[in-house]
Amino acid sequence: MGNKRELGIGMLGYAFMGKVHTNAFKKLSYIFHPAPAIPVLKGICGRNEKAVTEAAEQFGYAYATTDWRKLIADPEIDVFDNNGPNSIHKDPTIAALKAGKHTIVEKPIAMNADEAREMVEAARQAARKGVKSMVCFNNRFAPALLLARRLIQEGKIGTIYHFRAAKLQDWLIDPRFPLAWRLRRETAASGALGDLNAHSIDMARFLTGLEITEVCGVTETFIKKRPVPLEASGLSGKPGSQEGEVTVDDASLGIFRFSNGGLGSIEASRFATGRKAFWRIEVYGSRGAIQWDLTQNNILQYFSLDDPLEVQGFRSIQVTEPEAHDFIKYWWPPGHVLGWEHHHCNTIFHFINCIANDLPIGPWGATFEDGLQAQLILDAFLRSAEQRSWVSV
Amino acid sequence: MGNKRELGIGMLGYAFMGKVHTNAFKKLSYIFHPAPAIPVLKGICGRNEKAVTEAAEQFGYAYATTDWRKLIADPEIDVFDNNGPNSIHKDPTIAALKAGKHTIVEKPIAMNADEAREMVEAARQAARKGVKSMVCFNNRFAPALLLARRLIQEGKIGTIYHFRAAKLQDWLIDPRFPLAWRLRRETAASGALGDLNAHSIDMARFLTGLEITEVCGVTETFIKKRPVPLEASGLSGKPGSQEGEVTVDDASLGIFRFSNGGLGSIEASRFATGRKAFWRIEVYGSRGAIQWDLTQNNILQYFSLDDPLEVQGFRSIQVTEPEAHDFIKYWWPPGHVLGWEHHHCNTIFHFINCIANDLPIGPWGATFEDGLQAQLILDAFLRSAEQRSWVSV
Amino acid sequence: MGNKRELGIGMLGYAFMGKVHTNAFKKLSYIFHPAPAIPVLKGICGRNEKAVTEAAEQFGYAYATTDWRKLIADPEIDVFDNNGPNSIHKDPTIAALKAGKHTIVEKPIAMNADEAREMVEAARQAARKGVKSMVCFNNRFAPALLLARRLIQEGKIGTIYHFRAAKLQDWLIDPRFPLAWRLRRETAASGALGDLNAHSIDMARFLTGLEITEVCGVTETFIKKRPVPLEASGLSGKPGSQEGEVTVDDASLGIFRFSNGGLGSIEASRFATGRKAFWRIEVYGSRGAIQWDLTQNNILQYFSLDDPLEVQGFRSIQVTEPEAHDFIKYWWPPGHVLGWEHHHCNTIFHFINCIANDLPIGPWGATFEDGLQAQLILDAFLRSAEQRSWVSV
Amino acid sequence: MGNKRELGIGMLGYAFMGKVHTNAFKKLSYIFHPAPAIPVLKGICGRNEKAVTEAAEQFGYAYATTDWRKLIADPEIDVFDNNGPNSIHKDPTIAALKAGKHTIVEKPIAMNADEAREMVEAARQAARKGVKSMVCFNNRFAPALLLARRLIQEGKIGTIYHFRAAKLQDWLIDPRFPLAWRLRRETAASGALGDLNAHSIDMARFLTGLEITEVCGVTETFIKKRPVPLEASGLSGKPGSQEGEVTVDDASLGIFRFSNGGLGSIEASRFATGRKAFWRIEVYGSRGAIQWDLTQNNILQYFSLDDPLEVQGFRSIQVTEPEAHDFIKYWWPPGHVLGWEHHHCNTIFHFINCIANDLPIGPWGATFEDGLQAQLILDAFLRSAEQRSWVSV
Repeated sequence: MGNKRELGIGMLGYAFMGKVHTNAFKKLSYIFHPAPAIPVLKGICGRNEKAVTEAAEQFGYAYATTDWRKLIADPEIDVFDNNGPNSIHKDPTIAALKAGKHTIVEKPIAMNADEAREMVEAARQAARKGVKSMVCFNNRFAPALLLARRLIQEGKIGTIYHFRAAKLQDWLIDPRFPLAWRLRRETAASGALGDLNAHSIDMARFLTGLEITEVCGVTETFIKKRPVPLEASGLSGKPGSQEGEVTVDDASLGIFRFSNGGLGSIEASRFATGRKAFWRIEVYGSRGAIQWDLTQNNILQYFSLDDPLEVQGFRSIQVTEPEAHDFIKYWWPPGHVLGWEHHHCNTIFHFINCIANDLPIGPWGATFEDGLQAQLILDAFLRSAEQRSWVSV
Repeated sequence: MGNKRELGIGMLGYAFMGKVHTNAFKKLSYIFHPAPAIPVLKGICGRNEKAVTEAAEQFGYAYATTDWRKLIADPEIDVFDNNGPNSIHKDPTIAALKAGKHTIVEKPIAMNADEAREMVEAARQAARKGVKSMVCFNNRFAPALLLARRLIQEGKIGTIYHFRAAKLQDWLIDPRFPLAWRLRRETAASGALGDLNAHSIDMARFLTGLEITEVCGVTETFIKKRPVPLEASGLSGKPGSQEGEVTVDDASLGIFRFSNGGLGSIEASRFATGRKAFWRIEVYGSRGAIQWDLTQNNILQYFSLDDPLEVQGFRSIQVTEPEAHDFIKYWWPPGHVLGWEHHHCNTIFHFINCIANDLPIGPWGATFEDGLQAQLILDAFLRSAEQRSWVSV
Repeated sequence: MGNKRELGIGMLGYAFMGKVHTNAFKKLSYIFHPAPAIPVLKGICGRNEKAVTEAAEQFGYAYATTDWRKLIADPEIDVFDNNGPNSIHKDPTIAALKAGKHTIVEKPIAMNADEAREMVEAARQAARKGVKSMVCFNNRFAPALLLARRLIQEGKIGTIYHFRAAKLQDWLIDPRFPLAWRLRRETAASGALGDLNAHSIDMARFLTGLEITEVCGVTETFIKKRPVPLEASGLSGKPGSQEGEVTVDDASLGIFRFSNGGLGSIEASRFATGRKAFWRIEVYGSRGAIQWDLTQNNILQYFSLDDPLEVQGFRSIQVTEPEAHDFIKYWWPPGHVLGWEHHHCNTIFHFINCIANDLPIGPWGATFEDGLQAQLILDAFLRSAEQRSWVSV
Repeated sequence: MGNKRELGIGMLGYAFMGKVHTNAFKKLSYIFHPAPAIPVLKGICGRNEKAVTEAAEQFGYAYATTDWRKLIADPEIDVFDNNGPNSIHKDPTIAALKAGKHTIVEKPIAMNADEAREMVEAARQAARKGVKSMVCFNNRFAPALLLARRLIQEGKIGTIYHFRAAKLQDWLIDPRFPLAWRLRRETAASGALGDLNAHSIDMARFLTGLEITEVCGVTETFIKKRPVPLEASGLSGKPGSQEGEVTVDDASLGIFRFSNGGLGSIEASRFATGRKAFWRIEVYGSRGAIQWDLTQNNILQYFSLDDPLEVQGFRSIQVTEPEAHDFIKYWWPPGHVLGWEHHHCNTIFHFINCIANDLPIGPWGATFEDGLQAQLILDAFLRSAEQRSWVSV
């Protein structure tokens, strides 16, 4: 690989998402063969010095730091990966873009639309110098969802009447679960809404190519106070004896309207007992329908009115055919299922490939404009919940 | 059976629902052994004289009539079954109750809450004379849902956080489908809302024992004009060359709040391609969860946090055990699945059993008060759709 | 219905199967409209006088008897339905046929091939006088399996390589389950083999149109002694204090070869914990595949290599379309699922329709020749189990 | 990681399995934290010089060679990974063990039991010097199957009555698929039998802890001649114009008996249209049952008679709980599903962990004795197919 272009990676975040993204960078060179460029793990940043130093050793980063500005200032870092809490998305991202570093930021792009607009502006400025930027809506790169999008784009589903998404988890059922950063408005902006419905909102736009024009939603916090964790690290941390207020939503659900008049429903909860990383998506149109579920991520359900009536039915397509399905040729033979991590691997590959070959991030990758659009819808959702009525996006 | 009490049956309606209810009456004596009483098919009523006469012969009714008053006046008729269009629920039902006839009426109970209130009053008056009345929310009698209710009542699900229901069909996808009575406000009051969401609303109350206090919904008519049918008979009828306006909703979806603060979502559509009689119901609580689907009506999915962590999972309970599950002892051995029609058979048996043994209709059967409560929620839903905001029930 | 032809029914058997067949006869006139003839329930026969008398009253037969010869001698009986234990299939069936009565007999047709040959001969003689005979392989009339057969006959599956069937139950897991007639060789001939694998063997032939030429099987009785029931009635009866030997197989599994060189596997057990009336069937061919499961009896899974590669997958066809699927037009609208009993209803309708309109029983109905062929395979299976090697049929 | 023990890796094989194993070695240090040792990729070997040289670069091996003896002679190589065709399992493996290298070999261990016995002897000799050896039955390390084994070992399933396994693929349906090494007896020994049923045989022993004492099987080659590939590389290679004979089985199915009298069935085919990497396993016992399917590899189905009757049912356990399920703590949060590759990652970690901490390979890992036992059963299966009768193992 000697003469392959190398890209220095700087990462902000080292916990769950840090591990997932690092895994994606590490697998790139030998899975996505021939690799468009070779990621080299330069620096990793986090607030907890001990933890981030351990992470650097575990993951193989050249150094650890508690100051993200050090990553921005490092001339050997070409790519900045921001997967820290939502509250530190904006500033480091804008700084990185200004420093000419290709930047990928976890979803949701920001704390609110105002922040997102600033980031979009920075991304546009940077783009003029060839700098790439992308929001890590990683599920766009599930091969089954890429097939879903393709079928919709090809007209196989027809006019879209309904989009339905439910992203259900249960990790907050226990009242002793501590007050992690995701449960505080100042770090997360919102709860299930920004964490989970953000995915559904982006997916609605990505799959259908339609815009969401108005929404009506409700949010709820079922357990209002929780123990403050003794030390903050990702979502874990032992609960202490002090209690603090939960300032984001445990659940948020709502309905919306597409630009074509179609109707959508989205539902997110961290109180759906028995559901872990459940995410079911359905799209119904005048010629067909699709259904997908994250816990069976290799399968796309597809119904077509073009089939003869006697054999119409939802097909359970195993989206693992190297010759027919996107990204599969890099992985394993037909039927050898991919897991959840592979969506991130495909996402990071797309990002690096766009950098190495100067390709556009969209329509597969989520641009910062896509991130802003999702943020506008999230903001409208919150306004609707406050006003208890429909609001325009 | 000579000395068994016989109950004369008079039926208003002879198409789809007429056939289903008649089947239930006919199976009662030999399936639900020993039968509490023997139904005797006396008279059947419909607008189309030729069709209702043929139905009488097919089903074995002693006579046919186009005037429902004849049924009410017939002293040999003890039980009045009203399964005609919604617009003729109120008057014949009240007349029957006043005439001292036990009365079952298809859901929704009426065109609106005002009508329902009159009917409740008539039912109360009649009850003082021992006359029974019931709304045919037949799915309450699916053995799997009776098990779901039992688990919730026993506290196995804990505090209810979420109820979700989707009742999806696709029979209106074809724009040439004719303007049947179900698509006209004057006969049906509403479309998917009253036909489908009515079931979900009643089921939310039935399963959880909670009241719905406020709702926020939207309705939509995707195809505004359809061909007028050449002759009206149930939902069939060939489309003619004239067009008429569709005056009810093709789809209606919304969110609601329970009296305990829990959140619900309901969604109904006749435009969900690939779905025929799909109805998925989910309930999530602090100790467990349940899921059920009409297309697999014998199965109840049940998740319990009381299980050891390593074996927690949704159980797929085949609700066909004679010794453990309600109504099954009357049917077949374990695993011999029941179909959709059997919910109606169980419903009618319950009604006749309550008559024969002077038992209360509720809590299993839907009383007229239950019917009114569902109607109040349907009315609130429509108001919400007009006002584009939350409304109290 | 006054001028419709009436057919007097005489039934041997009054327990589980007696109830199922009676239900089918009773539903015929109003479900299968216009009915080809009207069954009239004349006489019912069983060994237990009290029980059969009660059954006659419950089901509505004109009289009960403990002597099947009385049914044969009754000139008002046109149709003889033999669903007693296997040991009384032969003699009453032959007597009925000789008396000119149309006869349907439960599967397996007989205790062994020698008996079956006699019955075939009697059926042939009777056929010359227009008398119909049929073996009640009721699952042939599951609409989903009729669709499976149609797809195979149309060549959609191509050359058959594999047939797989597993019919799994668990009602003998409890060692205290009593020694019912099905567990004694003198009444049942064999256990899981004749009760369960008989269905799979007939289905293999019915679906594929191929013959089974050689088999290799094993049988096992896991629990050798069981309590003798205090009174014998169907499969129930309380266990007494005396023990008796189980003389049939608890489980039987084997492999076979089709006339075209394809391979099959069949497996039957009454010791498959958690399975109640489970029956999964799979057929794999050069162009496609099908899968079906009795517990989801309305669904046919169908895979076709003719689909474009990117959307190939097992279709889950809900076989409930009146316009496209056999027998559905008599029942309910699309998606309103049928249960297990409806296969029997369709079967009896086919039999009565063949009688009323002088139509051939096959290929949908199982002729006595089909019954004999299944019996030859069952006999070969038992020989193979004894010889511990492959045997030709 | 500076002071962590490093282990030099030498790999024989560079195609499909070479990529899978390399991926496992590369993920070890950052996923299985803290890693017991750090694998260092030293040398890789294959017959095709150009291809293996490219693989070395892609995967990051220090050098490539076409002579496996070079790997054996390399003092920097501590671990030898043999995933070449079956015909080169024996000699390199024995040589590696003699040279003191820890050795893992792909399944089946050898071409036949005689070869396997020699390898076992070499492993025993090497073990005395602390050298580890293991057969790569990777599916033993699927967390869901580890849970299945645990439940069986804890007695939750009770006495085992039935084991059923079907491993179905369809990659040979196309008659033009070329004559790859897996289709030739001299390189593969057998076809579906050794490739697929070997997995089922090992899993039967692994899960139940029982031995297989006698088997009865059949093998078949549906398509006897295929085009010789233009160049041999793994399973791909374009078909040439010359034809050669297929000398292994396309399908093999059979029945067997366990040491406790329980019955098993196994079925493997490369002609099961629509099945890609399908592998369904079922175990039925006196107290419960389990079912697992490779295409939903994170799910274990578990039925327990210990549950109250009304809620008995197959639980769908998502085996992704870090606190409760083996290996999950190294991966992602609950519900974030693992794919097929992760079984191999866990396997390789176990092997390296046993080396680094001098732990026994079994009972989780397959020892060479396990490999021999599986081979004895495969050999018996082939003898049975020839003799057309049952044979003892």
